[in-house]
Amino acid sequence: MPGVPVAAAPAAAATAAGGGASKATVDTVVHARWVLPVAPTPDVVLENHAVVIDKDLIVAILPSAEATDRYEATTVVHRPGHAVMPGLINAHTHTGLTLLRGCADDTTLFTWLHETIWPVEGAFASAPGFCADGARLAMAEMLAGGVTTFADMYWFPAEVAAAVEAVGMRAVLGMVVIGFPSAYASTPAEYLDKGEAAAVAFGHVDTLHWAYAPHAPYTVADETWADVARRAEATGRPIHTHVHETRAEVDASVAGDRTSPSCHQSDTASRPLANLARLGIVNRRLAAAHMVHASDEDLAAMAAAGASIIHCPSSNLKLAAGLAPVAKMIAAGVNVALGTDSAASNNGLNVLGEARLGSLLAKGVSGDATAVPAAAALAMATINGARAFGLDALTGSLVVGKKADVTCIQLANVVGCEPVFHPLSAVVYAACRKDVSDVWVNGRRLVKEGVVVAMDVPAVVAKAVGWQRRIEECLAGVRKKQAADASEKAA
Amino acid sequence: MPGVPVAAAPAAAATAAGGGASKATVDTVVHARWVLPVAPTPDVVLENHAVVIDKDLIVAILPSAEATDRYEATTVVHRPGHAVMPGLINAHTHTGLTLLRGCADDTTLFTWLHETIWPVEGAFASAPGFCADGARLAMAEMLAGGVTTFADMYWFPAEVAAAVEAVGMRAVLGMVVIGFPSAYASTPAEYLDKGEAAAVAFGHVDTLHWAYAPHAPYTVADETWADVARRAEATGRPIHTHVHETRAEVDASVAGDRTSPSCHQSDTASRPLANLARLGIVNRRLAAAHMVHASDEDLAAMAAAGASIIHCPSSNLKLAAGLAPVAKMIAAGVNVALGTDSAASNNGLNVLGEARLGSLLAKGVSGDATAVPAAAALAMATINGARAFGLDALTGSLVVGKKADVTCIQLANVVGCEPVFHPLSAVVYAACRKDVSDVWVNGRRLVKEGVVVAMDVPAVVAKAVGWQRRIEECLAGVRKKQAADASEKAA
Repeated sequence: MPGVPVAAAPAAAATAAGGGASKATVDTVVHARWVLPVAPTPDVVLENHAVVIDKDLIVAILPSAEATDRYEATTVVHRPGHAVMPGLINAHTHTGLTLLRGCADDTTLFTWLHETIWPVEGAFASAPGFCADGARLAMAEMLAGGVTTFADMYWFPAEVAAAVEAVGMRAVLGMVVIGFPSAYASTPAEYLDKGEAAAVAFGHVDTLHWAYAPHAPYTVADETWADVARRAEATGRPIHTHVHETRAEVDASVAGDRTSPSCHQSDTASRPLANLARLGIVNRRLAAAHMVHASDEDLAAMAAAGASIIHCPSSNLKLAAGLAPVAKMIAAGVNVALGTDSAASNNGLNVLGEARLGSLLAKGVSGDATAVPAAAALAMATINGARAFGLDALTGSLVVGKKADVTCIQLANVVGCEPVFHPLSAVVYAACRKDVSDVWVNGRRLVKEGVVVAMDVPAVVAKAVGWQRRIEECLAGVRKKQAADASEKAA
Repeated sequence: MPGVPVAAAPAAAATAAGGGASKATVDTVVHARWVLPVAPTPDVVLENHAVVIDKDLIVAILPSAEATDRYEATTVVHRPGHAVMPGLINAHTHTGLTLLRGCADDTTLFTWLHETIWPVEGAFASAPGFCADGARLAMAEMLAGGVTTFADMYWFPAEVAAAVEAVGMRAVLGMVVIGFPSAYASTPAEYLDKGEAAAVAFGHVDTLHWAYAPHAPYTVADETWADVARRAEATGRPIHTHVHETRAEVDASVAGDRTSPSCHQSDTASRPLANLARLGIVNRRLAAAHMVHASDEDLAAMAAAGASIIHCPSSNLKLAAGLAPVAKMIAAGVNVALGTDSAASNNGLNVLGEARLGSLLAKGVSGDATAVPAAAALAMATINGARAFGLDALTGSLVVGKKADVTCIQLANVVGCEPVFHPLSAVVYAACRKDVSDVWVNGRRLVKEGVVVAMDVPAVVAKAVGWQRRIEECLAGVRKKQAADASEKAA
């Protein structure tokens, strides 16, 4: 697997040129057995290269020996059995729900939402600390698993923003809007205005990005979608939503069956995506989570618009939403990224695992063992996620001038990875999230030798366990009421 | 999730009863936050219980406080945030191929076999040490991942037997037979006789079990199957084989197309399983790997016969064999166990991961989110594997009197598992193979605090890397010859 040469940046190197020339001083040089830059193409493998980081930027990627000649670094990290690659991107999650991990498994989407998730959210989402504590637990898990950026969609994004700022991860926070009042906001306009205010309030945070996050066609009305389209056009911000997650959503909307809870909130009887297109939502700013039920026409429309699909393989399987036609999506030219969805439906935030599953499932569903090879899966887990949210000039690949969002994963001397014939294949098909050794976000080292140094992880876990007790009490009450209702109905 | 009480064994407890009574002396007591015995039903959860081990046996399972009163142990292990459960069972693998992990990914089954696996096996399978070194690498990975028993099918099982004996794992070694001569044996009878001789030679090893392992209907002739049926009838040994892995295998056999390499080696035009039934193979001794292409009739026949299917979800997806109807298999009453297949097609031997994937995929394929809940997935990964090979009186669940094949996995205080609402769900859907802390096989502790103490793992990895160099040279030669053949053909 020959490496494609990548030019070192002259940037910080200044007068450097080996020999007796003075060295440029930088913050960090990471020497690795393999560098997988996912650029200029996802299959590039550089052997014995170094990634040079200064402040928040990647300033050079070059052979290790040359890096040693040219750079004087405050921190030099040697990773002789590791692959260094762009930080993973979780392009669809709901971090607050991490506190509900595994509290209701093996149920249908409808039961899961109505009998557990919504009652618990009703009781707690507005409780002080809930959203931020869930986000912190999620960030600890994601960082430990090599994720540097996540796209979130949850209540009270300003609280989450403060938590993200403190930790230093990169996030695309959703300015959520849904067609019913909640403890967070009363009207669609209030939801959106609060989101925009949060974006302004946190405008100083370099790693925070914002997206409009209308929940889904079946919970958001046409006029709100039109408002979102106008706002997105004006600000250039992405739109992060759920589209075509279930067959029921498509069928009820095509039938115009407004009595169905899955029907889109529109009088236009059509596929939800077609209605969104009519309302100005389907363009390069759209990041459509799930799209399990995508027709050839849907995919052609998405590709033509330059829109993205966020594939969530574990969640789609677990809730039996269906088998997404990922190989077809890619063949149609759609940008396909990966999301974990929430830990309440997954039950983890393991993007490396989603890359493996995304590749395997695409092969199984398409019947083509050559579909979504390892390099394509790694692209789905990195650059495609950046592209989906308009961040590909900043992150998603290791390129000089991009932000230093970098993940390092051990392959050599790992039972379960060895022998390493092809590092790309080892990363996607054999490595485990716990083989991640180091993570930098925006040039800051947040994971060091397998330990999340950016957070007080035991405190974060203790908070989660505290929420668990409260949620268990709440669920006991919900179950009791359900039983009483059922016995009353039976009487 | 209420625990079903499990009686403590009076066995070694002798006169014990708390108070001043003398305590029984045993080798090991493992106290755990949760014990998941998978018995008498897979959904049992015992809180704050202990598993008492003496010599090779489980002698009691009882509340921790009571265990402290009644037993004096040489080794007392406290696992306050962990689940203790039966050791995982990998019911279908080819350990020798662990040395080929990831050497040829993203290719079709046919290309994979013909252009990589078979040429490399031709060059190396008979080389001294190859099979045993592969088995050792596989055992290191499996033990670290909580696997205590594996069913192997590979060349030179006597070499593997010696390696297994030295390590102390439990294994069902395949007495392999295939319809062509190899460096291992020349005729089907010689294959089988060598296998039986190995079984006799290692008869003294308590953890070694043997199965007839005819490779597949498309590589083994009718008369050999009949011979296997007679031998299995005489010895009571199981039969481990590949059945209906691909659609091509079924279609070519039904058409009686002997020109196809996928056609069964029989003049009977029929589904391969029907032909095996005719030849006396389909009974409770049959462990049929894959069975991706199982009709309702196939499943009814398997269930009526008491035969088992070894589901290999990762391998089936990766080689695009198809989507196995696992929910249907279970509904039909077939015993379904889990296998990783080889690390050349998977690319790991991660049974915990297969349990998660097996559950998720069954939900996705059946469209039923309630299919294969966590407890059923754990059963597939443990007791069902034991049942498939007639070992369910010995292993596969934590029951007094069974062999002490025990795995301990940390859930509490693990980012990625917390909060732990339901330990069964956390084990299957959230935990990672690297959360395994301790493993006992036949009462011997082979993994201690995450370290495989039964083996010199760095030496095992070093051997694997040595083989990698030789395999890379061999493959370079194969590729060169393929290119030359192609250009000759083109000329």
